[in-house]
Amino acid sequence: MRHKLVFLALLALLSFVGVSSSAQTRSQDGAEVRAADQEWARVFAAKDLKASVDFCADEASVLVPNAPIATGKQAISQAFAAFFAIPDFKISWHPSKVEVANSGELGYSTGVYEMTFKDAAGKAMSDHGKYVTIWKKQGGKWKVVSDIFNSDLPAAP
Amino acid sequence: MRHKLVFLALLALLSFVGVSSSAQTRSQDGAEVRAADQEWARVFAAKDLKASVDFCADEASVLVPNAPIATGKQAISQAFAAFFAIPDFKISWHPSKVEVANSGELGYSTGVYEMTFKDAAGKAMSDHGKYVTIWKKQGGKWKVVSDIFNSDLPAAP
Repeated sequence: MRHKLVFLALLALLSFVGVSSSAQTRSQDGAEVRAADQEWARVFAAKDLKASVDFCADEASVLVPNAPIATGKQAISQAFAAFFAIPDFKISWHPSKVEVANSGELGYSTGVYEMTFKDAAGKAMSDHGKYVTIWKKQGGKWKVVSDIFNSDLPAAP
Repeated sequence: MRHKLVFLALLALLSFVGVSSSAQTRSQDGAEVRAADQEWARVFAAKDLKASVDFCADEASVLVPNAPIATGKQAISQAFAAFFAIPDFKISWHPSKVEVANSGELGYSTGVYEMTFKDAAGKAMSDHGKYVTIWKKQGGKWKVVSDIFNSDLPAAP
């Protein structure tokens, strides 16, 4: 009987430790995904191609408007390089919502972006819209597995 | 000593049961999210407004190109109704990838869509592109918390 009680007490303790460490992980991971989102925005705005691609998992897909899906680091590198080659390209984005699964390895960030650039004729252009980025923890680091965005601006006639 | 061994054996058994039931849940949830994605596509293609909106969580956001973010069932209902009002609107989509977190309550589906419709002048138009839908299990049912898509077609000049 006494051993049964000790066993039950140990089980209860293990459950408690499990639950509280899981809750702590979740909250930390939400902050981690938000930080990863904003660090990715920083290196992308700085047109650092290597650092921008390094944020992506090997199997990642980037879903750019008016282009086919870019899957894998080589295709993603080409898609990012095309952005960085746009004259006077400037971009920023900010997450309005971040969620992480209870298990702490899958999450997403979503929010709004703003960009400015010059068109082929040198005319100043601007765009703003929204995005969703899916993040997966791989080897202790949050990596992008999917990124997609679209514009708020009315479609051209 | 003997009790310690029994305790360790019980712990090992509990871990094993925990791991295998979690793996089983993940695989089932992947199939569940895929089925939810395709059932949502079915009611949306049928222009069933109530059923299409019912797939969305109360706090869901739908991120339609060339429009601001629609958050909440009322805004989402208006966004869907605008699609269903397009003359001869037909749509289908199919997930190419589905992932669910180990904890089994958060996942996403991503794939490609096709749509056809008539423009204001009655001219037949078509579009195809890609999408990402984020799903969350609420009250035992998979609900959309975020949905976003964009076109593969070149931007209008």
